[in-house]
Formats: sequence, structure tokens, C-alpha cells
Amino acid sequence: MTYQIVTLPGDGIGPEIVGEAVKVLEKIAIKYNHQFKFNEQLIGGIGIDEAGASLPEATIEACLKSDAILLGAVGGPKWDTTSNGDRPEKGLLKIRETLKLFANLRPAILYKQLKCASPLKEEVIGDNLDILIVRELTSGIYFGKHERVVMENKKATYAEDIEYYNVEEIERILKVGFDAAMKRGKKAVIVDKANVLATSKLWREVSEEVAKEFPEVEYSFMYVDNAAMQLVVNPMQFDVIITNNMFGDILSDEASMLTGSIGMLASASLGEGSLGLYEPSHGSAPDIAGQNKANPIATILSAAMMLRYSLGLNAEAYAIERAVECVLDQGYRTSDIMNEGMKLVGTREMGELICNAI
Amino acid sequence: MTYQIVTLPGDGIGPEIVGEAVKVLEKIAIKYNHQFKFNEQLIGGIGIDEAGASLPEATIEACLKSDAILLGAVGGPKWDTTSNGDRPEKGLLKIRETLKLFANLRPAILYKQLKCASPLKEEVIGDNLDILIVRELTSGIYFGKHERVVMENKKATYAEDIEYYNVEEIERILKVGFDAAMKRGKKAVIVDKANVLATSKLWREVSEEVAKEFPEVEYSFMYVDNAAMQLVVNPMQFDVIITNNMFGDILSDEASMLTGSIGMLASASLGEGSLGLYEPSHGSAPDIAGQNKANPIATILSAAMMLRYSLGLNAEAYAIERAVECVLDQGYRTSDIMNEGMKLVGTREMGELICNAI
Ligand SMILES: CC(C)[C@H](C(=O)O)[C@@H](O)C(=O)O
Ligand SMILES: CC(C)[C@H](C(=O)O)[C@@H](O)C(=O)O
Repeated sequence: MTYQIVTLPGDGIGPEIVGEAVKVLEKIAIKYNHQFKFNEQLIGGIGIDEAGASLPEATIEACLKSDAILLGAVGGPKWDTTSNGDRPEKGLLKIRETLKLFANLRPAILYKQLKCASPLKEEVIGDNLDILIVRELTSGIYFGKHERVVMENKKATYAEDIEYYNVEEIERILKVGFDAAMKRGKKAVIVDKANVLATSKLWREVSEEVAKEFPEVEYSFMYVDNAAMQLVVNPMQFDVIITNNMFGDILSDEASMLTGSIGMLASASLGEGSLGLYEPSHGSAPDIAGQNKANPIATILSAAMMLRYSLGLNAEAYAIERAVECVLDQGYRTSDIMNEGMKLVGTREMGELICNAI
Repeated sequence: MTYQIVTLPGDGIGPEIVGEAVKVLEKIAIKYNHQFKFNEQLIGGIGIDEAGASLPEATIEACLKSDAILLGAVGGPKWDTTSNGDRPEKGLLKIRETLKLFANLRPAILYKQLKCASPLKEEVIGDNLDILIVRELTSGIYFGKHERVVMENKKATYAEDIEYYNVEEIERILKVGFDAAMKRGKKAVIVDKANVLATSKLWREVSEEVAKEFPEVEYSFMYVDNAAMQLVVNPMQFDVIITNNMFGDILSDEASMLTGSIGMLASASLGEGSLGLYEPSHGSAPDIAGQNKANPIATILSAAMMLRYSLGLNAEAYAIERAVECVLDQGYRTSDIMNEGMKLVGTREMGELICNAI
């Protein structure tokens, strides 16, 4: 089969890590007899620099015609203040919106080989932390109206952001979450602030309905402040967490840090069809860009998620995941996950080692 | 001097822990020759049960006439669904609003005697974690309009919550935060989501202005998702965190858990004048209510904050804090902070020990 893959290297370490993921995909193509057609496009800061927009039209067009999208990272101090108000992150928000990628899946997995990297004590983090955060990605306070109203009396000048959710939006993300729970530990926690927010109350009601379609999934509700605590003191209690855009942003980052190795964490953003956008959970790390230091594993594992979710190539996805484990078992580490007695390698070497292990 | 103190025991363990704090205050009164007049009033679930409202009028009146308010905790499964839509938490939100208590100070302090209770590894938590979270408490998405709009097409039914901030509200909370920083490590981090929210952008602009009045304070901005991560991997970097109502709710709870002993953490809610409301950071723990098991220390330390911030009795506040440390040094522990080799005591015994140590 032939698959069209758009790559969006973006900024900072983006080009390096996407480069390694492409190498790994090429190895998969040979081994499993597929054809991956890569089409590189601009996004983020480099989009602003080279095409005048954080999400150029050409990128959107290419994405819409593709089977899947692999993104590196966007952003950097260079674009913190651009003259026309465009910013690298806007490209990210706009691509999610344009492609209607409403479901963001962020696994927080502790690799047993990297257990000591966790900031949590051994007895807290346990042996097989594996949380999936399902975050709504195209609504909520991110996409509600943002407004600044300037008043004559300066002190009265105000700003507003609207948290908005309708039943349809809530329903579809819950279905993705419950579906995912069915394929895992069959436990879902819906995180909200129903003691304060009208949107959260609506989430709870819709949850009760959706849950009926998944009688095997054991589900419960948790306030976001409590969830932020529970992740730290008892992360092992979680299987799937389903939540809104803003809370998902915060909790998925918190959860990722529990593993101590954000350089290992992949993510997928999905819509109604099979098209999806895959990217590492970490950022563009401008401080180490171009130095062959970045950990490409999160991007490589994102490519594995892409094979599984967008291309339906399960065995191939699994082969990548196995290869990563194997290289870790052999003791190879990039500097972000390095520790005593291990073998330090750079971005390219890590990519090659994983290719060879496939 | 005579001081009027309203006590609001509330629900669950509230009455027990407030009882011990009152004992401690009575000891202070004798030792330092003050008069504390205690006036007990209703709030929360017991307010609903006995006076038909989570914040009865009589409570408001008493609070307005008082010098300070000491609260236990509100809430419990009993009131999760009340017929008239009132809930224990509403009493809490309403008292904050009515008394205009816009500044919530939540210290997250690691007691060296309890270091092993932290879920974080020793090298991460360090030796003297002491973060002060300054949370805006009477505006933001908590107090903006909450709305449910029912549509004929059920899927289109939606809910909205408005995050609102004006310059005045932002300014006054920032001043409290910068002021607090001046009295501590002179470092402030303002947490927001300025890459997405209009309110956050306004916060940043107002911060730049307010910061000019505090040239000695070193300040910076941090996105909330990053803050949620940094608290876990490098909590030692923080001195004062200043943030909005919603982010403050999440981050202060996360930070409190880093210490591993939320039973030790006090909080203060302040307005423009000297009137303040003081309460432990933990909840009403209905599961252990009435069993002489609850840890009264957070409430006792809240009483100390009350002496300091509302009554201007610094030496007296310090005496309580010293007494708590002393009792911990002697090895006494309630069950939530118990560990090997220590002496287990109940709520009342802990209160008495602290009284005796004063
Ligand atoms: C860059 C930012 C707008 C974005 C978000 O908040 O969604 C990022 O933090 C993420 O989680 O992908
Ligand atoms: C009970 C709830 C409304 C409250 C809040 O979110 O403010 C509580 O979590 C707190 O932090 O005091």
C-alpha cells in the first residue's frame, strides 16, 4: 500500500527528531513492503519566516490530502513577539481546528528501564504506570470568544474568555475516551469542576448518557483540583482520564512529568475520520536545537501511534515500540534520560539504533 | 485587647479541628493577656440543615462585625444532591464574594520532620520547600456568568462559563503577591496561559506595571501547563506563585500534595481591610468525622495566620508555629502523618500537646 504522510518539522529540535522518525518509517516500509510518500511542509515559526504564516495555506492543503501528519514541535524565543501578532503556537491551534482534530490522546507511560528518572518515590510511581489522558482539543476556553474591552476608566478595562461546550462536542470526546478505556483497563475518570462550572455540569450529564453505551467501563468523576493532587500521590489509580481542553492541557503535562522522561512521550490528535496528527508531547527545546542532543524517541513513538490509528498498521506500530524497548534494554540513552552505567548517544545514533532493532 | 472571632466549624471533621484551634487560641489569650470572643455560626451542609442555607444571613452579619473568621471545612456526600440546588461549597464561594476576600494565600511548606511523607524523591523535594501560592479568589471563571442554553436539537444544547478579569482586580491581587514576595525570597512567578487567553494577556500587561512598584522582586511568567510540570520536577525553584482563581485552585492543591501532609497546611483569604477568613487547605473528610482522628494542625496554623494577618499579633502567631514544630520534634503524630517510631495521637491529644507547648 502507498500512504501519503505530511511531515511538519517545525522549529527548534523539530527537524532533527522528525528526521529520525522518517528514517524509522522508511525501515518499516522496506520490512513490511509499504510505500510512505513524505511531503514536508511548514508550520510554526519557520512558517512565519518562510511563508508569512504560522499555518500556511499550502500546509493545510497538503494535510487535507494526506493520510496522516507527523509534527515535530513549534515555537522559540525568536517569535515571542512578531509584528503581525502571528505566533508559532497559533499554527498548532489552527491546524487542530481546521482539521477538526478534537481528540488528543496523551499516554503517560513509565518505561521500566527509566523508572529511576521519575521524580516520584518508587513506592508511589509503582511498576507499570500507564495513564492515557484523553483531552478535548477543538473547543472549550481555547476556542470560545476571547475579548478585550478597553474602558475610559483604565481600571475598568477588562478581558474575557468563554469556556463553551455543546452536547455534541462533549459526546464525541467521551466516546473516544470510553472506547479507549474498553481497549485498556476499562476504567475512566472524567475530570471537571462541576461544583463551579456550568460546562462541567453538562459534561457530567452527557457522561451519564454515554456511559450507558459502555456498561463494562467503570467510570467516576473527579474535580480537577483533586485530580492534580491524586496524580502526584496515587497515580496508579488511573487508567483513562477524560477531560476538557484546558484541564487536559494542565493534567497531561503534569502526568507526563511523573514519568520523568517527557522525551519518551508520544501524542495523537484525531478527528472523525482516520486522518490524525502525531507529535511528541515535549516542546521545541530551542536551547539544544541542531546539536544532535534531542531525544527522538517521543517522535518515533508518535510515528508508531500514527501507523496504528491513522493507517491501521498494528503489527508495524508494535514493531517500532518493541524496537524502542529493545534499544533501552541495551542501555542506550540520549542525554535527557541518561544515567550512570548507561551508554550516551546522540539524536542520530538513537534513530539508527532503533532502525537496526526493527 | 478584645477581639471578635467568628468560628465556622462546618461539616465533617470541621467541628473537631476548629475545637482544637479554639483551645490553642484560648491558651494564647491567657499567656499574652488578650480576650478572644468566639461567636460560632453555621456554614455549609450544616447551614443547609439547620438554617436552610449554605450561608445563612446570621452568619454573614456576624462575620461583617468580626475581626476575623476561622473556618473548619464544608461538604459531604449527604449534600451532594440537595433539592433546592444549594450546596455546602456555595456557602464558601458566597462568603468569599460577600466579604470580598480576593486574595487567597496558600503556603505549601515541607516540615523537615515530615520530609519522608512527600511523594517526591528526597533530591527533588529538597530540604526547605516553602512555596506561597497567591490565588485570586473573587473573580475569574468562578464568578463570571455561568449559563446553560437548551436547544431544540438536543445535540446543540450548550453551556458557557465566562472567565472575566478587569485591571483593578488583577492589580490588587498582584500587589498582594508582590508584597508577600518582598517579605520572603523576593521572587514571583505569574502563572497564566497567555498564549491562548485574553485574560492572561491582560494579566501580563498589568504585571509589568505593578512590577515597577517592586523593583527588588525578580519576577517572571510561566504557562500553567509548564507550572504544573515544574512543581513536580523542580518545586525548589518557586518562592511566590501568583495566579488566577482557577489555576490557583489546581496548582495550590498540586503543590500542597508535594509536601505529603495536607493535614499541616493552612490558608488565609484576605480582602482590602484586615478582616480575613482562615481555614485548613484540606477538606471535610466525612469518612473520619467524629472519630478523634483528624489532624488539627492545619487549622491551628490557620489560627496562627489569623493572629498575624488580621489581628496583627505576630509574636503570638509565632508562638503557635513554634509549639507545632516542638510537638513534631517530640515525635507526636496524628494518623495522617504517622510513621514508624513515632507516637500516634488523636485530634484532642494533638491539640492539648500544642497548648502545652505554648
Ligand atoms: C502551545 C499551546 C497552545 C498548546 C496547548 O495549550 O494546547 C500546548 O501546550 C499543547 O498542549 O499542545
Ligand atoms: C469547594 C470549591 C468550590 C473550592 C474552590 O474551588 O475554590 C475548593 O476547592 C477550594 O480550593 O477552596
